[in-house]
Amino acid sequence: MSGFDLQAYLAERRALVDTALERHLPSEAAPPLTIHRAMRYSVMAGGKRLRPILVIAGAEAVGGAATMVMPTACALEMIHTYSLIHDDLPAMDDDDYRRGRLTNHKVFGDAIAILAGDALLTLAFRLIADNADLVSDPRVIRDVVAEIADAAGTIGMVGGQVVDIESEGKAISAETLEYIHRHKTAALIRASLRVGARLAGGDAKAVAAITEAGSDLGLAFQIVDDILDVEGSLEELGKTAGSDERKQKATYPGIHGREASRRQAKMLIDRAKERLGVFGQRSAPLLALADYVVERKS
Amino acid sequence: MSGFDLQAYLAERRALVDTALERHLPSEAAPPLTIHRAMRYSVMAGGKRLRPILVIAGAEAVGGAATMVMPTACALEMIHTYSLIHDDLPAMDDDDYRRGRLTNHKVFGDAIAILAGDALLTLAFRLIADNADLVSDPRVIRDVVAEIADAAGTIGMVGGQVVDIESEGKAISAETLEYIHRHKTAALIRASLRVGARLAGGDAKAVAAITEAGSDLGLAFQIVDDILDVEGSLEELGKTAGSDERKQKATYPGIHGREASRRQAKMLIDRAKERLGVFGQRSAPLLALADYVVERKS
Repeated sequence: MSGFDLQAYLAERRALVDTALERHLPSEAAPPLTIHRAMRYSVMAGGKRLRPILVIAGAEAVGGAATMVMPTACALEMIHTYSLIHDDLPAMDDDDYRRGRLTNHKVFGDAIAILAGDALLTLAFRLIADNADLVSDPRVIRDVVAEIADAAGTIGMVGGQVVDIESEGKAISAETLEYIHRHKTAALIRASLRVGARLAGGDAKAVAAITEAGSDLGLAFQIVDDILDVEGSLEELGKTAGSDERKQKATYPGIHGREASRRQAKMLIDRAKERLGVFGQRSAPLLALADYVVERKS
Repeated sequence: MSGFDLQAYLAERRALVDTALERHLPSEAAPPLTIHRAMRYSVMAGGKRLRPILVIAGAEAVGGAATMVMPTACALEMIHTYSLIHDDLPAMDDDDYRRGRLTNHKVFGDAIAILAGDALLTLAFRLIADNADLVSDPRVIRDVVAEIADAAGTIGMVGGQVVDIESEGKAISAETLEYIHRHKTAALIRASLRVGARLAGGDAKAVAAITEAGSDLGLAFQIVDDILDVEGSLEELGKTAGSDERKQKATYPGIHGREASRRQAKMLIDRAKERLGVFGQRSAPLLALADYVVERKS
């Protein structure tokens, strides 16, 4: 993007998020030690911090700042992490590696991994409540709780995960795959942008624009994830590449082909960027993030 | 209690709660069907509805009504149910029966049971947010979200469950057992009473009194649960009696003896009732509920 240094932006925001996560997670020295160690193990395992950075970018697009939305940004990362911990369980995807390290249940056992996920989801809502102290109109907190609960629940992320599990080993339609992607991944990405804009006082027009962009961005992100899973290597992704295939999961390139998938992701990103035009100068981080979603290698 | 018909009170409130739960749970006809069926299976399996009734009684004690707190009352029952679904999993307590029926994972499989628990916890916070429309000061919602998240998280219910799991098969101290009981059970019972009073506009003095009473009531409830587990039968409890012993779990009567346990529960209930004196006439339901906690047979 013309003059915008995305790598510096991402590195700075990621450092802010990591510092805030470190502060908001319970101390490993506080009892019960095991669960706090397990929560920190997965949250502090690195990762792109895409969702919290989108919360921040959503706030910045309407003139807000990272400090106004940081507890909610951390909440979104905790919800994302809880979903990964539970997805990796033997009863679900049965994965041994995540972000290049052993999965939570391989280190702490299934019981603690289930509880660590539960605890992260619970703590996420505590953090959203705490965000009330940082915004000009604390009544917005109620809407943010509702939006994030919807995006994470059965009409969002959990719903997508259910259909994903039920589709394993089956030939599914393009519509079912899009349902899975829109719910399992895109819903939380869209919500991240939306709540960032809402907490920072964005008006209805701004929130509508960011919602549509978030929807496209979220779907494009998952399409690219599917492509990377097909192409990637263990080294680059930090998880077993080709794992979708091994689990007989339908993927976007599997149904539409790799070229059509790339084109579709590009189209969605272009449309998202067009919609972000309303924010003028302030949209620079979001426009760069949109390009990053399709161009990333991991 | 002098003239107060507890059975009628419980039956009426339970019917109100069941109707509200029915309304707030996603329809079994809405996709994804499986997860909605699994959520309803466990929530609508009956049960005492103690936590939602305590939310209502907490509101009534400060002059409020059931209608003002019903979404939050349902939220507490959903959090309680999610904890039972996850506790029953093979990776945790590995129970086949609950409330006289097959446990969630025995019917729907481990993956859906994990997700149904996740979804109920998530929906609970959605309902608390919705409660904002029913109270005079919607800013209290932020505090209610925070209180319930704390009571359900690692400084509350999940924390108690972690120590419970880690203590299985070990000789634990009376202090550790009290830690487990206060966190795993009492924290959510106390929070139920507190948020009922807060949503209905209770002042600081009222909330303080109800908090102390809730703390005693919660611990007494779990002590009686332990006694019933030792004494009970499959028929009465709807789960395998003596299951704590089978799992080598420490119990209150196991450590203190059955007679001392009964005396301790009675002392806690008497103290709770004394503290509820500040509510005068309005405390009748709570006083009767307190007696019910020690006198119940299941």
